[in-house]
Amino acid sequence: MSRFFSDKYAYLDPYTPGEQPRDRRYIKLNTNESPFPVSELALQEAAAAAERLHLYSDPECTELVKTAAEVFGIDRDEVLFTNGSDEMLNFAFMAFCDDEHPAAFPNITYGFYPVFAEINNLPYAEIPLREDLTIDISDYIDIGKTVFIANPNAPTGIALSRSEIEHIVQRNPDNVIVIDEAYVDFGAESCLPLIHKYENLLVVQTFSKSRSMAGARLGFGAGNPALISDLKKIKYSTNPYNINSMTMAAGIGALKDNEYFRRNCAIIAETRRYTADELRALGFLIPDSSANFLFARHPDIGGEELYLELKERGILIRHLSRPEISEYNRITIGSRKDMETLICTIRSILEEKK
Amino acid sequence: MSRFFSDKYAYLDPYTPGEQPRDRRYIKLNTNESPFPVSELALQEAAAAAERLHLYSDPECTELVKTAAEVFGIDRDEVLFTNGSDEMLNFAFMAFCDDEHPAAFPNITYGFYPVFAEINNLPYAEIPLREDLTIDISDYIDIGKTVFIANPNAPTGIALSRSEIEHIVQRNPDNVIVIDEAYVDFGAESCLPLIHKYENLLVVQTFSKSRSMAGARLGFGAGNPALISDLKKIKYSTNPYNINSMTMAAGIGALKDNEYFRRNCAIIAETRRYTADELRALGFLIPDSSANFLFARHPDIGGEELYLELKERGILIRHLSRPEISEYNRITIGSRKDMETLICTIRSILEEKK
Repeated sequence: MSRFFSDKYAYLDPYTPGEQPRDRRYIKLNTNESPFPVSELALQEAAAAAERLHLYSDPECTELVKTAAEVFGIDRDEVLFTNGSDEMLNFAFMAFCDDEHPAAFPNITYGFYPVFAEINNLPYAEIPLREDLTIDISDYIDIGKTVFIANPNAPTGIALSRSEIEHIVQRNPDNVIVIDEAYVDFGAESCLPLIHKYENLLVVQTFSKSRSMAGARLGFGAGNPALISDLKKIKYSTNPYNINSMTMAAGIGALKDNEYFRRNCAIIAETRRYTADELRALGFLIPDSSANFLFARHPDIGGEELYLELKERGILIRHLSRPEISEYNRITIGSRKDMETLICTIRSILEEKK
Repeated sequence: MSRFFSDKYAYLDPYTPGEQPRDRRYIKLNTNESPFPVSELALQEAAAAAERLHLYSDPECTELVKTAAEVFGIDRDEVLFTNGSDEMLNFAFMAFCDDEHPAAFPNITYGFYPVFAEINNLPYAEIPLREDLTIDISDYIDIGKTVFIANPNAPTGIALSRSEIEHIVQRNPDNVIVIDEAYVDFGAESCLPLIHKYENLLVVQTFSKSRSMAGARLGFGAGNPALISDLKKIKYSTNPYNINSMTMAAGIGALKDNEYFRRNCAIIAETRRYTADELRALGFLIPDSSANFLFARHPDIGGEELYLELKERGILIRHLSRPEISEYNRITIGSRKDMETLICTIRSILEEKK
């Protein structure tokens, strides 16, 4: 820290991205990336856009917005794209929270929420999950705070139903409810259809996971036009050209190639079923996941120990040190082959321990 | 505005990007883009990176940082890349300004500075330029504020010398001096060589202009490792994966193709000399520009009138409505052919007025 750094941020504890070690090739099951390459159509569109890279990207993302509105069945003024969904989440914390509107989110969820609250100097409440790692929606009824819920939740993978979320939205008419649907395409119900109905619902999605575009950085928020207009004010006051032309074009290609996207999601859901069955047969305890990862613990081996044993054998999974969940690991659903290797490797680790 | 928007931002007046009308094809001389396409090497690197788009981009930008450190002769811990230089400028306002360290910048400069100050709720002082539109460096000696100076300044194009800036840096040892070198490559002296010498100097550059990458969104800040470490804390608390893989790769290609970059800058400087000579011969008053644009006014035609007349004829230049400079227009240096068309068109507009 320099002596010039503002005291406001002295106690900031930044987010730690999943590790990307370069010492050897790993089977990467630690950052919830897709095992499938990006759509060919997305690649073609990105390549065409690259030829015009000397010109500024369109700050209004006109074509991308038009395509997204068609694909999602929403209006063009109901959506705003951002440089990854992280940027949208930060904008939402900025726009819809303050001392009178503290943030609220589960104590076990996407680890970035408290960081967004801290950097914006916002009060926030962390609402404990139930013992079984589920969200108790009664905790959020009439809460009177700006609610952030990842659905499915991370790192648990457990989803709420659309009607449960609708209940939360209805019972907090004076607060914005932000539903972070980073993993929704793998088996949960999206709340996108509800945005026409409620003025206080913001749905956030990303192209990183289900559309194989983690490296492109593209996310969006969808909601009532007035909410979107607020978020645009934040964008135009921080980074109007927040999305580069290649990513914008790739996003259009990915949306047009919806069939490829659907097939990949279905395969990942099937591989998840296979992986969960195999791991449970080995004694793992795993809540039902609607995401592209499993959250698993084993009675005979600690979370950190399993993580380290796998890393030594060339497989990366994500271990989160937070005490309440330190016995768990979050395991991304990769290709069928990678999951077979994982299961086989875990089996031998468990056998060695006997 | 929704009723949920935080009162903090109620009076926000966002930045207005240069217009991008779609009603017809224009000769675009309004957003300081390069007339040259991006380097072939940059295109190749971006295309290769696109193949791995399903994986997250490297949040540390390891290869890009390594290449930049070599090209600029700085250390790897002295540089941080951002999603355009706008993001770096916002980070600098966040990190190095607060109630005890207000921001200070010229009253006529990049129009985003007051917006960055406003969105971060920071006090700021706008220091008037001299009548001839130059910066009086004595205004910044012992100012005791966090100084932001665009060098060359925009929209005037007028540059300070490195030694003048060094004097400001020396005489404000307890404040960070941010030098925004968006246009430095077209003829001004960069302060990059000074960052090893002063712990309170942050130099900001962009790949948008001189490296023909406006659509890719890539900028950086360079300074003492402690300053860079502060800025990293802001990055990792807002958007760790702020740069997508394609842009990161294109940046590496552009840096390696330094010869192409140098040649383009030299051609633009030569075209600027030609354009300034021709416009002065037509009666325009133009301060000497070290940037890829001219700031010009004519005694016989108002700034807005000329802008509108040119727009009607298919040429876009930038008119800024701020009263002190409303008689001026900012004209980007495009290709020689585009500038010939501009001069010819202006000549006939002036003749029609007689």
